[in-house]
This record gives sequence, structure tokens and C-alpha cells, in this order.
Amino acid sequence: MNYRLEQDLLGEKNIANSTYSGINTARALENFDLNSKAVNINLIKDIALIKKAAAMTNMKLKLLAAEKAEAIIKASEEVIEGKFDNEFRISAFQGGAGTSTNMNVNEVIANRSIELLGGTKGNYDLVHPLNDVNMSQSTNDVYPSALRIAAIRLIRKLSNSLSSLQEALQIKENEFSDIIKLGRTQLMDALPMTAGQSFGAYSKAIERDRWRIYKVEERLRQINLGGTAIGTGLNATNKYVFMMTDTIQNLTGLGIARSDYPMDITQNCDIFVETSGLLKSCSVNLLKISNDLRLLNSGPRGGIGEIILPKMQTGSTIMPGKVNPVIPEMVAQVSLRVIANDSAITSASSMGQLELNAFTPLIAECLLESLELLDKSVILFKEKCIDGLEMNVDRCLENLEKSLVSATALVPYIGYDKASSISKTALVTGKTIREVLLEEQMLPVDIIDKILSPTELIRTHISGK
Amino acid sequence: MNYRLEQDLLGEKNIANSTYSGINTARALENFDLNSKAVNINLIKDIALIKKAAAMTNMKLKLLAAEKAEAIIKASEEVIEGKFDNEFRISAFQGGAGTSTNMNVNEVIANRSIELLGGTKGNYDLVHPLNDVNMSQSTNDVYPSALRIAAIRLIRKLSNSLSSLQEALQIKENEFSDIIKLGRTQLMDALPMTAGQSFGAYSKAIERDRWRIYKVEERLRQINLGGTAIGTGLNATNKYVFMMTDTIQNLTGLGIARSDYPMDITQNCDIFVETSGLLKSCSVNLLKISNDLRLLNSGPRGGIGEIILPKMQTGSTIMPGKVNPVIPEMVAQVSLRVIANDSAITSASSMGQLELNAFTPLIAECLLESLELLDKSVILFKEKCIDGLEMNVDRCLENLEKSLVSATALVPYIGYDKASSISKTALVTGKTIREVLLEEQMLPVDIIDKILSPTELIRTHISGK
Amino acid sequence: MNYRLEQDLLGEKNIANSTYSGINTARALENFDLNSKAVNINLIKDIALIKKAAAMTNMKLKLLAAEKAEAIIKASEEVIEGKFDNEFRISAFQGGAGTSTNMNVNEVIANRSIELLGGTKGNYDLVHPLNDVNMSQSTNDVYPSALRIAAIRLIRKLSNSLSSLQEALQIKENEFSDIIKLGRTQLMDALPMTAGQSFGAYSKAIERDRWRIYKVEERLRQINLGGTAIGTGLNATNKYVFMMTDTIQNLTGLGIARSDYPMDITQNCDIFVETSGLLKSCSVNLLKISNDLRLLNSGPRGGIGEIILPKMQTGSTIMPGKVNPVIPEMVAQVSLRVIANDSAITSASSMGQLELNAFTPLIAECLLESLELLDKSVILFKEKCIDGLEMNVDRCLENLEKSLVSATALVPYIGYDKASSISKTALVTGKTIREVLLEEQMLPVDIIDKILSPTELIRTHISGK
Amino acid sequence: MNYRLEQDLLGEKNIANSTYSGINTARALENFDLNSKAVNINLIKDIALIKKAAAMTNMKLKLLAAEKAEAIIKASEEVIEGKFDNEFRISAFQGGAGTSTNMNVNEVIANRSIELLGGTKGNYDLVHPLNDVNMSQSTNDVYPSALRIAAIRLIRKLSNSLSSLQEALQIKENEFSDIIKLGRTQLMDALPMTAGQSFGAYSKAIERDRWRIYKVEERLRQINLGGTAIGTGLNATNKYVFMMTDTIQNLTGLGIARSDYPMDITQNCDIFVETSGLLKSCSVNLLKISNDLRLLNSGPRGGIGEIILPKMQTGSTIMPGKVNPVIPEMVAQVSLRVIANDSAITSASSMGQLELNAFTPLIAECLLESLELLDKSVILFKEKCIDGLEMNVDRCLENLEKSLVSATALVPYIGYDKASSISKTALVTGKTIREVLLEEQMLPVDIIDKILSPTELIRTHISGK
Repeated sequence: MNYRLEQDLLGEKNIANSTYSGINTARALENFDLNSKAVNINLIKDIALIKKAAAMTNMKLKLLAAEKAEAIIKASEEVIEGKFDNEFRISAFQGGAGTSTNMNVNEVIANRSIELLGGTKGNYDLVHPLNDVNMSQSTNDVYPSALRIAAIRLIRKLSNSLSSLQEALQIKENEFSDIIKLGRTQLMDALPMTAGQSFGAYSKAIERDRWRIYKVEERLRQINLGGTAIGTGLNATNKYVFMMTDTIQNLTGLGIARSDYPMDITQNCDIFVETSGLLKSCSVNLLKISNDLRLLNSGPRGGIGEIILPKMQTGSTIMPGKVNPVIPEMVAQVSLRVIANDSAITSASSMGQLELNAFTPLIAECLLESLELLDKSVILFKEKCIDGLEMNVDRCLENLEKSLVSATALVPYIGYDKASSISKTALVTGKTIREVLLEEQMLPVDIIDKILSPTELIRTHISGK
Repeated sequence: MNYRLEQDLLGEKNIANSTYSGINTARALENFDLNSKAVNINLIKDIALIKKAAAMTNMKLKLLAAEKAEAIIKASEEVIEGKFDNEFRISAFQGGAGTSTNMNVNEVIANRSIELLGGTKGNYDLVHPLNDVNMSQSTNDVYPSALRIAAIRLIRKLSNSLSSLQEALQIKENEFSDIIKLGRTQLMDALPMTAGQSFGAYSKAIERDRWRIYKVEERLRQINLGGTAIGTGLNATNKYVFMMTDTIQNLTGLGIARSDYPMDITQNCDIFVETSGLLKSCSVNLLKISNDLRLLNSGPRGGIGEIILPKMQTGSTIMPGKVNPVIPEMVAQVSLRVIANDSAITSASSMGQLELNAFTPLIAECLLESLELLDKSVILFKEKCIDGLEMNVDRCLENLEKSLVSATALVPYIGYDKASSISKTALVTGKTIREVLLEEQMLPVDIIDKILSPTELIRTHISGK
Repeated sequence: MNYRLEQDLLGEKNIANSTYSGINTARALENFDLNSKAVNINLIKDIALIKKAAAMTNMKLKLLAAEKAEAIIKASEEVIEGKFDNEFRISAFQGGAGTSTNMNVNEVIANRSIELLGGTKGNYDLVHPLNDVNMSQSTNDVYPSALRIAAIRLIRKLSNSLSSLQEALQIKENEFSDIIKLGRTQLMDALPMTAGQSFGAYSKAIERDRWRIYKVEERLRQINLGGTAIGTGLNATNKYVFMMTDTIQNLTGLGIARSDYPMDITQNCDIFVETSGLLKSCSVNLLKISNDLRLLNSGPRGGIGEIILPKMQTGSTIMPGKVNPVIPEMVAQVSLRVIANDSAITSASSMGQLELNAFTPLIAECLLESLELLDKSVILFKEKCIDGLEMNVDRCLENLEKSLVSATALVPYIGYDKASSISKTALVTGKTIREVLLEEQMLPVDIIDKILSPTELIRTHISGK
Repeated sequence: MNYRLEQDLLGEKNIANSTYSGINTARALENFDLNSKAVNINLIKDIALIKKAAAMTNMKLKLLAAEKAEAIIKASEEVIEGKFDNEFRISAFQGGAGTSTNMNVNEVIANRSIELLGGTKGNYDLVHPLNDVNMSQSTNDVYPSALRIAAIRLIRKLSNSLSSLQEALQIKENEFSDIIKLGRTQLMDALPMTAGQSFGAYSKAIERDRWRIYKVEERLRQINLGGTAIGTGLNATNKYVFMMTDTIQNLTGLGIARSDYPMDITQNCDIFVETSGLLKSCSVNLLKISNDLRLLNSGPRGGIGEIILPKMQTGSTIMPGKVNPVIPEMVAQVSLRVIANDSAITSASSMGQLELNAFTPLIAECLLESLELLDKSVILFKEKCIDGLEMNVDRCLENLEKSLVSATALVPYIGYDKASSISKTALVTGKTIREVLLEEQMLPVDIIDKILSPTELIRTHISGK
């Protein structure tokens, strides 16, 4: 293999000529050799987008020669297009607050620019990773800004996925609006309701999730480009700050805005905690819904069995015919992962010190993973579980008819204590509430029938009145 | 001691005549005998407020006789005033989804009402805990509604406390706006900044916290009174629902609204996860700030020592003269507790099943504790730590002058690599950047002095231009 | 009210004459005025025990006059007996790494000693809280040692409670060893088993918990008394260290040992993380078991209904006759609290810095709360839930007979694919496996009956062979 | 591309002829299409090892023809060698309790076996994934057993890595045993100590971690092979159970044992919670140590600066000469990830229901990731941070000499209150303790010098005696 010699503050290093990254990347690969996931590619691409924007801006400001700037712009675009994905292999769990990731992008763009200008990789006199590609920038303004942009893009995707899920739940709400079934509180038989109402309640929860996640974008829009190392802006200029914001807006189509206090954005990570907290709320709802579906689908013979989930795959390597609720099980696990990621994001964010948070790489990895996993699993949940689920109407009816919950409707007529005693008698004797009532002759038959009619028991009123 | 005999579904029990609570409370005290904290008193009082509102409403609807209703209203007011605080001793970690707490309030109000009407405790023919005090209600609509009201009240307090803290931080921002000090990223010397900017960045973070917490009230306002057991509303009426909402608004002065889908409110707890998540974001900021203050206050001689925190108490039982940063240490611990509470709230909320979440007692305990602890600690933080803190100007200057960070300002003049080499030389030789620059004669003295002037280094520009 | 004037490094303060605590306690009450729980009384008492031991030791070493030492010993004993419980009201969430708690004990013992010697409170020339009561000690060796002792005592209690629970589960294992019921994996019908086996599996899990918790005592036994402020031992002597260890052993009856590296004990909190981690493992098992019981008890008519939990209290304020599984619900919530406490203990322990962990008060509060709550709830779980639970044998049989799981036993005879197809036919047609088999005439009737016999299906063998 | 048609319970599907996996794998890839990490390859390989052992056993038991068994054995070995790594791409976050992973291995081994026997892929009459490769097994005994084996292997690696780290810390303990420096509690100046003692305390903590992690292997050794679907063992035989245990022992060289209660192992996951809890304890120690090192390394000029960490890479893209503590930062982030993984493992384990835990795929992913990340980062920590770190002796001395902590040594001579006042005077006037003492003429000069001598202040005794 051919090598070129590169050097830095600490000395020299042979770098394979085939790679576009340089000595800083090489050191980072050794230092963080964890055999773990690499940095999320969405983040890489939005860093490259900032590089492009900076080159455009610095060219306009006459700080960067046009030829050089154009090469950088072209190279950045290639990174964004994914041409160099395999150049970005540094561990997601890297030290250095993202400097290695920023340098990785700087080096790949520099070497690709050099190539575009006809030079050979490593000839940084043509295009320098720091003086040129990183001009007017610091990792500490590039990295948090790119993370915000990447997060907003994924938030929009997730917001759309949640909309679809909500819609699918509403369709089931309507579809099942005439099926009466037993409600349950604390897993014990409670009042009757419609099957549609179950899905209406789920839909409401997902609607809130969508709205929250949609709205948090507003707080993520503020970036600190131009703040450079600690937010004071040394080595950038006000012109640069304003032009960069405009350029980023144009390139992304997002309502990105410059912060009026960049030092705040550089050091504080509460916005990521807030965002992740909302993903956690969403996960809580997904856990609730997926657990409910698994419970109502239990059986097919020896469980509650009121819902029939679509069959997605063979369930057992030993029990023939068994089919398991694999999609809700996947959704539940993704939800638990998102909750665990939130714990890491929270701790890492709280550990920021003075003018910077050194643990943004962990925050970025966890936040972007949560966003991507939720988006994908919400879509799968909708398509492979909700859309095709059906009610087992016979089973709903069977469970309802056996139950004693209609005693509640008697309270306005005979008081809690007598109703309680009737319910107890029914339970002990194996009779229905109606049978006990008839025996005890407390109320006329027609009144009894009116009070206990299932359709009477699912509305806001005194049953039978 | 004198006893009265009470009975329920399960049998009979002697109840001390001195107590206003009855057989359900007695059983709960035995069942949940954990020697733990009792239910948060704020929740008890807002349940009593709902009892009062229900009595007013049911009286107007002619469902409850005026004399009886008025006794219930009076008794509820006494509970709200705190006259019966010691009657509410059931563990916060109770089973039953709050039924025991609701029954405890029902029984105390019933017995006090009976007393007000001239009867003797336990004579529930006069006022019945369920038929009268709990009329048109279920624990499953009373409890979540009361929890929302209690949370909103505490949120308003906390929101005000955060405003005061933010203001105090801004005062420091102005007070210290002329003190130049060393910035630090990843704990390593970075660019200069003003001491005021530190507090400006803290202020921004707390401002976001205040705003978030203030805004979440909107989502907490929706209550499910009238939804009764599972949200369908059996045994309540639409008139009751509308009148109750109005009454609660009047009694609380809060913008409480009825949910258009009560079944959602009965079973879904994501709003508590969202609220707690925002308290967690706030805790992350408080941890960051309190850790920073402890770090900058470290010493007094062998640490960074740039900040002097107010001395609040003797610090050591063995080291005379030692004073510790006890207030930030307390704030940090409260923050960790809030984060741990969030974990419990998240898990409990995700464990809801079908038409109810059985674990609302844990959610209530953790959420209300977090709100109260944060409110109190934010006030103490402001009054006993921020208001009186001072900068050690000499130390700030000393640390700044020793540092080599001004090399950054050279990059636009001589490029990153040469600036890097100068910095390295300074570090190894123990010289300043200025000394090395002069020796190397790269730039004229007047330019060097202009570039390296501290006041030049804290702005968004190219230093020296 | 009468006051005495006390002074410290920071100035003077009026202290109510009625109180035994002094100026340090008074400042702490103000500084940590959180309206929260006070320090766990178990910790207070074991600090007092160390005070007693130190007085005994210093008397023998002639560092403390006999009369003074005896007064301190007597006063410490009174604290241990609980005579001054109401003097210890400082918040559990205090700053200062426990110094305020240690001073609170020092002051109460000093003033009570002064009183015993005929002096008046505040006359510290007679007995000084620091020079005498705290002699040879620092908060940093007293506090971690007392916490270990308090934890060991509670661990022994919990270990016993878990033994009782395990025994109760084994009794059920035997009691139900002949009841065959349907097993379920992923909530779907699986192979048959005995009801006893359910409880056998629970018993095994609790057995591991008991063993783990019992064994961790060994690692908690090492204390750092004599290490004083940072573990180096300045102001203590080796004689003191050895005598103290012996004295503490005698006073507690526990196998307490001195650490051979006190500096380690002073600063590292991993032993508390380990202990709490084991409480978390136990909570996971309790959650699993309590959730299973709630699920199998679901109904009584519209759920699985195979288990009948003891009825402990009325379940609903609106639905007469409803009884809920309140004990498992309580156990689940305690478990979630313990898991949340573990999160706080983990974070606080990781935040130790250099020679001390400033956040031991939070660690102590959470660890001791977890130990106490688990102990109490495990006993309640056994007595009020496990001991009295019964199987609904008819329901077990009904659920089993309807199921299609016996198809598994056909695999060794006809292969997975054919067995799968038979199972599918049965599900679709509503028939039993036996019926389908007979129709398809794949196997002779007597072989079929032998293979499908329930008692054949619950053992390690090829059914029918 | 060429396809073969495969079928299952749900229908038919075209499978690319190039792939060794079949219809079950294909469905799983679609169902869990999360674009996430694939199942940990260590787990895959130990499942293949069980397949090999089962084929060996079933061949001996005459249940499997020799030719077929030998093909399966060979194919399994190839999977273990890594020849088919790219066939295992199903998401780590899969539903189905591991069935898809087990089927993926079954299918790859079946098709490779068919190929070895001269057949064409998909011709399952030659070797059947279920009837042959999965013979006598269920996912529910294979998966938990393989997970235990994979965990034990990684535990042994981690245990060794921790040993190396501990040794490296002890080397530093010895190397720095003569360097006296300032101790600090709550970040404030405390008593003097040696630099070696810092590393001694770290070493002790890591020693405990190594021991705990080493010991937990014992509890992981119990496997449930032969328990099949729910632990009752249907379709396996006792001979199989015993022979399998022996075979697995031989193949792995590990002390694997069969559980005497397989149903326990099938459903309970507390052992993974225990193991992960110990990894969490280890992470807490790593966080503490890495944070301490970052703090003591802070500067180089404007921080504490007592430690000099090895320089591993350029630290900033804007500040020339800046070098950051990237290795401790990486270690801290890995530690936070392990703690977050523990949260997921805890929740997932608590969510087991009845005879199985459906969420073992998440548990496996998180546990194996934690083990691998810790192992790798511990080695990097040792090699790239601890081995090469040096003390800045001048800075240690400078910080110590400025401090006022020697006042502690005066307490046994003049009492706490006077010593406190001397310390306060020194702080306010900027003098040293010695200077104030001389001015106040409380003690003779030679006694003062003896008491305050740094080497006197670091031992367990009364300084000067």
C-alpha cells in the first residue's frame, strides 16, 4: 500500500494514500478503537453542509479565493451525497467534544478539494483542512449547529410518521365504533365500552406526541455559528454570522436562526434533554399501546383474545402453529431503548463544564438513534400491526356477558352498599347480575332490563333514565 | 379508647371513635403499612376541593339535599384549610390506583359532615361517603383531575422561583460585565471572556426552563371529571360535567377545561411524563450551574478560586476554617432526585394497562415531590448562593495572564500550524505567547500588542483588525 | 422563649434553650429548608453509636477524662434509644457531605452530656461538640462507617423477609403441584405445566435475591474509622483505629472490619452502587412476580382468572363488588421506587471528586429508603397476598382444554410442518387438536390419546414414549 | 438474480438463491426493518455452538443420522469461524424473543449442510432447519443458554482488562509515593497526601470491580438446555440434557452446568440485571477516576494542573496548541452508555411475563454491548492514559504551600475554635498558617515547625508527637 506522511502538533504519521482523511482522523481511529458504531451519518452530512455554507460565505467575504472555495463546495456536496460514507468510521463514543468528527470532515473535504484542483492528497498548501475548510469556524459552533439541523430533519420525519399512526388509529376507532366490549381497570373487569373507544384513546395520546415533537423544532432552530470556540466569536465576524445564517436557511430550507447569545448554545444542552424527554413521552405511549395490544391479543384460546393482530411470522421453533405479537414486541423494545438513551442524554448533558460540554458525541449518538428508531418503528407499527388488526367480536361479547360490572348502573337506584351485595352474591353463586336482581325483586323487570342494556352502559348519563 | 363498628364488602372492623376516617382507610393503613411518606397533602386538598365542587353541583342538580350538600361543602373546606391533615396517613406507595386516598377523603368529609349535622361518626345514613360525598364521581376521574390541579399550582410557584433565579443571574451578568477571565473548554484553558458572560449563559438556560414549565400548564388543564370509572361517564350526566368544570374554574381561579375525550385522560399519563421531563431538563441546567460554581469556587488556595461563594456554615468537623459550597451541593442532590423521580414516573406511566393506570399513586408522589423540591431549592439557590457571590478579580487576572490561549488570535495572521508551534514553544519554555512572538519576530510589536490585548479577544471579530 | 447565644466561624446566633442542638444545626436547618424528609433515623443512631465507641476508646487512651467520657456515652445511648428523635430534622437532601448531620449529633450529645454533668446547654467548656464528642473523628470517616453499619442491619432484616417470602412460595409450589394449567410465552398459549411450577420458578428467583443480598454484607463490613478527613488518619492514632474496630464489633455484634486502605472507603461509593444494584435485581423479580399474579388473577369473569388473590379491601368508589390486586400493585410501585433510587445512587456515586464524595447524603437517603421499603413490602406481599392465594382449578382446566398447544408433542412423530398445519386447521375450524388428528387419521387413536394426555405433556421426554 | 420459493405457515416467499438463510429470516428482515445494529455476532456464534452440540448429542442418541449430523456439525463450525457473518443481519431490536435469531442460525446451518451433502439450498428434505438443526431444542432454551455463554466469554476478557488497569494504577501508586500534594474534599483544599495514594484508592476500586465481575460468572453458568419451550422439557429427554451439558462444557472449556429448575432460567432474567448492575458499579468507578484525572490535568496554566496526561491528539480546530483529555472523556461516555444500557436491561427484565421474557433480544444487545465497550475502553484507558501519565511536581508543591489546611494539625494542641480563628486570619490577611502562629506566639517555633512539616501531615497520628 502507498502512504503519505502527515504531521501535526504531536509528530508524524503514515497515512494510506487511498484514504481522504488525514492524521487527525488516523489518531482518532486509534484513540477510540472501541469496535463500536461509527458517528451517525446524518450528523456528518450536516457538518459537510456547514462546510459548504462557510466556503460560500468566506468566498463572498473575500477571505477565501474563488477557486479554492468552489472546490470545497463541490467536495462538501459529494460528502452530502454519500460518496465518502466509508471515510467516516470514528467511534460514536469519542472523546474531544466532536473535534475528531469535525477534523474528519475537514480532512476528507480538504483532500477531495485538493484532488479536484489537480493536487495530490496531503498537499495541504492547496487546500488546508483548518485554515481553509474550517475557516471562521470551531468545532464548538459547527458541531452543535449540525446536530440541531440533523435533529430537525429527523423530527420532521418522525412527526409525519406519528401522523400516519394517529390516522390509522382513528380509522380503527371508527371501524370498531359499534363493537361493545368489557373495559378493564387494574386488569379487573370494569364498565363496558366500545372497541373503537380504545383506539380513540390511543389516537389522542399519539396526537399529543406528534404535536409536542413538532413544536420542539422551534427551540432547536437557534444555532451558534460564528460563536467559534466559546461563543465570544473570536476569529469570526458579524458579517459572517449573518450571511451564514441566511446561507444555512437556503441550503436546508429550514427556519434556522442565529442565537442572540451564542455562548449559551455552546455550553448548554438542555434543548437535547427536552427533545429526548419528548421522545421518551412518546415511548411511554407506545409501550402502553403495544402492551395493551399484546394483552388483548393474548390466547388465541387461553387468554383474553378480543383482538386479532395480523400474523407476521412463525412464532416458535418448537410449538407448531404458534404466532407471536412480534411487532408490538419490537415497538416495546425500541421504546425501552429510547428511554435508556434519554438517561444517557440526561447524564451527559448535566456533565457539561464551564464553556463547553465535552460529551456531545454521546448526546448526538443517542438522540439521533432515538429519532431514527422511533421513526422506523412507528411506521412498521402502523403498517404491520395497526392497519390489519381485527376485533374478535364473539369473544368481546362472551367476556362482556359473563361479567358483573353492570352492578355499577344500579348505584343511583339502590345505593352502593346494596349494589355491592348483589355483585358479591352473583360472583359467589355464579349467577348474572340480572338473575340476582330478579330473585331479590328489588326493581321491576322492565326497569332492570333498561338499566342493564349494554348500549345504555357506555354513555355519560344515569342508565335507564 | 372508644370504638365504632364499621363494615364493608369484606366484613367488619372496629374503628377508633376519635378518627374521622372509616373502615376503608383502616384497611389501607394495614395493607400499605410501609412506614413511608404519606400521600402528598397538596393532592389531598385538591381532592377535597373536587368534593366541594361536586356537592355544589349535585345540590344545584337536585341530586343532593341542600342541608347535606352544605355540610359536605363545609367539611371539604376544613380539609382544604388543613384542619384534618393528620387524618391522611396512608402510604404514598399504595395499591389501588388512588382509591384508598379518595376513600380516605370521602370518609373524613362524611364523618365531619355527619358531625356538623349533629350526628355521630359512622352514622352514614346521614351522609354516606360513597352515595353522597362521592356522588357522580369515581376515583378514576377525581384522582387524575386533582393531581393536575395540584401540579398546576406548584408549577406556577416554580415558574415564579425560576424567574427570580433568572433575574439574580442577570444582575450578576451586569455586575461582572467588565471582569475579563479565562474561558475553559473540556476543563482546558480556552479563549478569554467576561465573568458576566458566564452568568448570562446560565440566565439563558434558566429562562428556557421557566418558559417550558410555564407553558406545560396548558396541557395539564384538561381534566376528566364526569368520565367516572373508565371515561364513558356512566352515573354522571353532561350537565354535571359542564357545571363541574365551571365550578372548578371558579374555586381554583385556574383555566381548567374538560377534556373532549375523558377516556384518554383516565388511562394515559404521558402528560406527567412530559411535565417531569421538563423538570428534568431544569435539573440538568441546575446541575451544570451548581457544578460550575463549585469548580470556579474551588480552593480557596489550591483550586481555580475565581469565584467566592457566600459562606453559609462551618464546613468540617476536623479541618478548622474550611467552608464548603453546601448550597450548590444541595441543589445538585435535589436535581439528581428529580431525575430519579422522572425515571419512576416514566416507568410507572408506561405500565398503564387498558382503561387505567394502576400506578398513579407513585406518579403523583414523585411528580409533586419534584415540583416542591425544585421550587424550594431554586429559591435557596438564589438567596443563599447567587445573590451574594463575588468574583475574585485578582485570581481571574492571574489565571488569564498565565495562559497561552491568545495564540488563537494569531491564526488569521500566520495560520493554524505556525500558531500551534508558537503555543507549543511557550508551553515547553514557560514563556508567554508575547515573549515567543517577539523572539521569533514574525509580527511587529505594535501589531502583536493589538492582537493580544485581552479586550480584543472577547468579541466577534478578527483581533487587531 | 428563652435563647442562648452560640457562635461559630461565621458569627453568632440565638438558639432556643429548649433544643439540644446548636448553631451548626440551626444554620443547616435554614440552609436546607426544603420541607422534605429528614435524615433517616437509622443513620443518626449509628452515628451516635460511633460517638459512644469513640468516647469509650478515647477514655481508655487517656485522651478524654472519664467523667466527660461517661457523660458522652450515656448521652449517645439516649440518642440510640430514640429519646431525641425530634432533634434530628435536617433535610435528607443536605449539602456538606454529611457534616451537618454529624454536627447535629455532636451538638445534641454535647448538650445532653453537659446537662448530665450539671451544666447548662451551650456551655461547651464542659463538653465540646468537636474537641470532645468528635475527638479523633471526621465526618468523612464517621458518616460512611455509620452508613455501612445501618445498611448491614437493614440488609439482615431484608434477607430474613426474603427467606419468608421464598418459603411461602415453596409452600404454594407444593400445594399446587397437581394442578395442570396452560403455560404462556409472549402472552400466547404455550405448553402445559403445573401451577406449582409457576411458584417454583418465583421461589428460585427470590432465593437468588436473598443469597445476593445476604452476601453483599461482606463487602459492606469494611469501615474507615481513624482515616479522618481524607483517609490519611491525621489526628487519629493507630491504637485508636484498632480499639475502635473492636469496640464497634462489640457494640453492634456485626463483623465490622477496618479497611486496610481507608482513603479508598472515604472517596469511593461503588459498594453502595453494588448493594443498590442487588436491590434493583430483587425489584425486577418482584415486579415480574407481582405483574404475573395480577395477570393470572385478572377477571374475575373477563380475564384469565386462574389465580384468586386474597381480597384485601374494597376496590372501587363507583363499581360495587370490584376488588383489586392492591398488594401486588403496591409491591410493583415500591419496586419502581427502588429502581429510581438506584438511578440516584448511581449518579451521585459517579459524581464523587478527588478525596470525597459530596453527595453521600443523597446516597444514604436513597439506599436506606430502598432497604426499608423492600423489607416492609416483602413481608406484606407474603402475608397479605401469597399466603392466602388460591388457584381457580376449573378455570385452569377450561383454558387448558381449549388450547391447541398439544400439537407440539406431535413434532417427533410427524415433523414440525405437518404439526403446524394441524394446529392451523384446528384454530380456523374451532376444533381441538385431537379432533383434527382423528379426522386426518395420521395416527392411531390410542397413540393420539397417549401423546396428548396432559400429564404426559409436562415432563422432559417425548410424549407417548 | 435467481430465486427459490420457500413456504411457511403464512404462505410463500421468493428467497434469493445466493443467501443461506430462508423464509423465516426474510420475514424477520422485513418485520424489523429498523436500519439499526444487527444482532451481536458473539451471540450468533454461541447459538451455532449449541447447534453443533445438539447435533453431536442427537447423533449419539440415534435421533439424527450420522451423515446429516456431521454436515450440521461442519456447517455450525463454519458459522463459528465467521464464514457467514454477513448472513446475520436481523435487527438487534427484534420481536419474538429471539426466535428470528434462532431461525436465522437454523436456516443458515441447514442450507449450508444441504450444500455440504450435495443438495441445493432450500431442499429441506435433506436437512430441515427445525426437525434436524433445531432437534430437541426451543429458542427458549437455546437463546438464554447462548447468551450466558457469550456473556461469560466477554466477562473473562473484561476481568483480564480490569486486572491490567489495576496493575497500571498500582505502578503509579508506587511511582508517585514520595510526591506530596494537596488533598481536596468537596473541591475545597483539605489535608495533604501523597500523589501515590490517589492511585492507590483508584486501584482499590478497580480491584473490587474485577473481583465482582469475575465472581458473577458462577451465577451465569446455569443453563436451561433441554427445558425446551417453557422449561418442562417436552420433546427433549433427560439423557439429552446430561449429554448436552457435558458437550457444551467440552466445546467451550467453561464450567457450564445444567439448572436444576430450567423453568426458572427460561423466564427469569435477574442474573442479567445483576451482571449489568456490576458493570454499572464499574462504570461509576471509571467515571470517578476519569473525572478526577480531567480535573487534576486541568490547565495547563489556568487550572489545577497537578497531573500531566499523555497527549493523544490535537485538541481544537481553532485554538492552536490545545490538547484535550480525550481518553478520559471517551471512558466517561462509555461509562454513561453502560449505565444507560443497565436501565434498558432492568426495564426489559422486569417486563417478563409468565413463562418467558419476550424482551431478551434487547437484554442481549445491551448486555453484550456493555461488556465489549467496557473491555475495549478499559484497555485504551490503561494504555493511552494511565501508563504514560506524569505528575507536575512543581505544581503539586505550589498548591500545597499556598494552602491553609495544616491548621488541622493544631487542633489537638489548641482546640478547634482557636485553630479555626488562625485559619480565618491567614485567609483574610493572605498569610500562611505558620506566619500567623508565629505572630500570635501560641506555640514555640520548633514545635510549630514539627507540627506543620508536610511529611508529618500524611500519617495516622497526632502531628508533632
